[in-house]
Amino acid sequence: MPITHRLSLRVYYEDTDLSGIVYYANYLKFIERGRTEWVRDLDIDQVLLKAEEGVVFAVRRLEADYLAPARFDDELTVETTPESVSGARINLRQDVLRAGELLFSAQVTLVALSETGHPVRLPAKIRLKLH
Amino acid sequence: MPITHRLSLRVYYEDTDLSGIVYYANYLKFIERGRTEWVRDLDIDQVLLKAEEGVVFAVRRLEADYLAPARFDDELTVETTPESVSGARINLRQDVLRAGELLFSAQVTLVALSETGHPVRLPAKIRLKLH
Amino acid sequence: MPITHRLSLRVYYEDTDLSGIVYYANYLKFIERGRTEWVRDLDIDQVLLKAEEGVVFAVRRLEADYLAPARFDDELTVETTPESVSGARINLRQDVLRAGELLFSAQVTLVALSETGHPVRLPAKIRLKLH
Amino acid sequence: MPITHRLSLRVYYEDTDLSGIVYYANYLKFIERGRTEWVRDLDIDQVLLKAEEGVVFAVRRLEADYLAPARFDDELTVETTPESVSGARINLRQDVLRAGELLFSAQVTLVALSETGHPVRLPAKIRLKLH
Repeated sequence: MPITHRLSLRVYYEDTDLSGIVYYANYLKFIERGRTEWVRDLDIDQVLLKAEEGVVFAVRRLEADYLAPARFDDELTVETTPESVSGARINLRQDVLRAGELLFSAQVTLVALSETGHPVRLPAKIRLKLH
Repeated sequence: MPITHRLSLRVYYEDTDLSGIVYYANYLKFIERGRTEWVRDLDIDQVLLKAEEGVVFAVRRLEADYLAPARFDDELTVETTPESVSGARINLRQDVLRAGELLFSAQVTLVALSETGHPVRLPAKIRLKLH
Repeated sequence: MPITHRLSLRVYYEDTDLSGIVYYANYLKFIERGRTEWVRDLDIDQVLLKAEEGVVFAVRRLEADYLAPARFDDELTVETTPESVSGARINLRQDVLRAGELLFSAQVTLVALSETGHPVRLPAKIRLKLH
Repeated sequence: MPITHRLSLRVYYEDTDLSGIVYYANYLKFIERGRTEWVRDLDIDQVLLKAEEGVVFAVRRLEADYLAPARFDDELTVETTPESVSGARINLRQDVLRAGELLFSAQVTLVALSETGHPVRLPAKIRLKLH
């Protein structure tokens, strides 16, 4: 760590609202796509992780700054950078950029949860991949 | 049958897109809210139905006409009218209106599915409530 | 016509619901992405079209069959095939497939609208591209 | 200030994801509904405000804690409490509760923007209503 993962995506009609820009909740969708592709790149299979170990990731805390609006048809980049990992927590920085301009920046705290929703230690093989 | 169920709802920012009107996919959210409240009014508990009988409802077919646009802050009414019920299927008409003006009209075919996703007969107590 | 346009997309968390499959309204988002990329491939700039000619496309009618469910992490293909064009209308077939299996199939009627929401003839340069 | 505004809402299928709980981005939709109803209660017409003064509100910063999950069919309460107002900014606390249990808690900073997206002073009549 830290190695930054990058995902490109396009803004579609579904992402905008009547003010003509991307609706504020939809940046959280964009960064979740970024996390999913980052996890895939680490060769972690979320579906298997849930089926075999009963572990899922959930967002516990989010701090987000909306710096400039994204618009329909924009090509955006989601940058995901792991910043720290403890027993059950992963802290990430996730940014959304357009042509190098920072539009949205978030600090995200993930926790590992059991199927009953209780915090659990990250499986060892996951911790290894994050160090 | 047929008794029409009515649900009122408000259009929020999340429902609109950059063209300033309600995004076309979101009418399907509105009519699903209408179906959920219609089922609740029939005293059918979808959570129990799934837990106890392993049965869920799914949309199998939809025909929809977009007649006039809904806008931010509109108060809409979703009207749900059951039209026919067979072994595993329920046919509904679902309309969305604003102050009596018809904006959206759909024919919806629901099927009852087992947890493995196969069509199953509607539980008898449900069929009774729909006749 | 007809030339089929294809768009690949991934199913993310945001697309699913508690039944574990893609929420039914979200297929309409998928096919809108397909239409946007199809229009881009025809070298039509929707933003310019709106700014210069005051013309937008809207869905007027939709018929959709839900044949089999898509799931988290699936790679889907949206196939968009123009079937007919008249003065103000475009009829499309839009399918969603996973590894060649048809999951969702829709007939979509688009209309060209002025900024006041009235149907207008398709601009000639658009009609030419669709023939 | 501070007077807390309360809005009740129901969790529908559209709000959930495959983990069986409300998808994390959707709490931002819930609190936006809360802000819209709070503004309406202050007798501020957002549509008029935009049309007459060219002023819109946008979220500039958000801090959110996800404390416990909401589920399908839950009845939730969104509590919106204004905490401070300066020239162009409004700071709110927004909580989501179920039967008195706090599920989600956010600090939200709103800014007033001109139609070109630049920060502007809050119109005097709005500032008055917030003091």
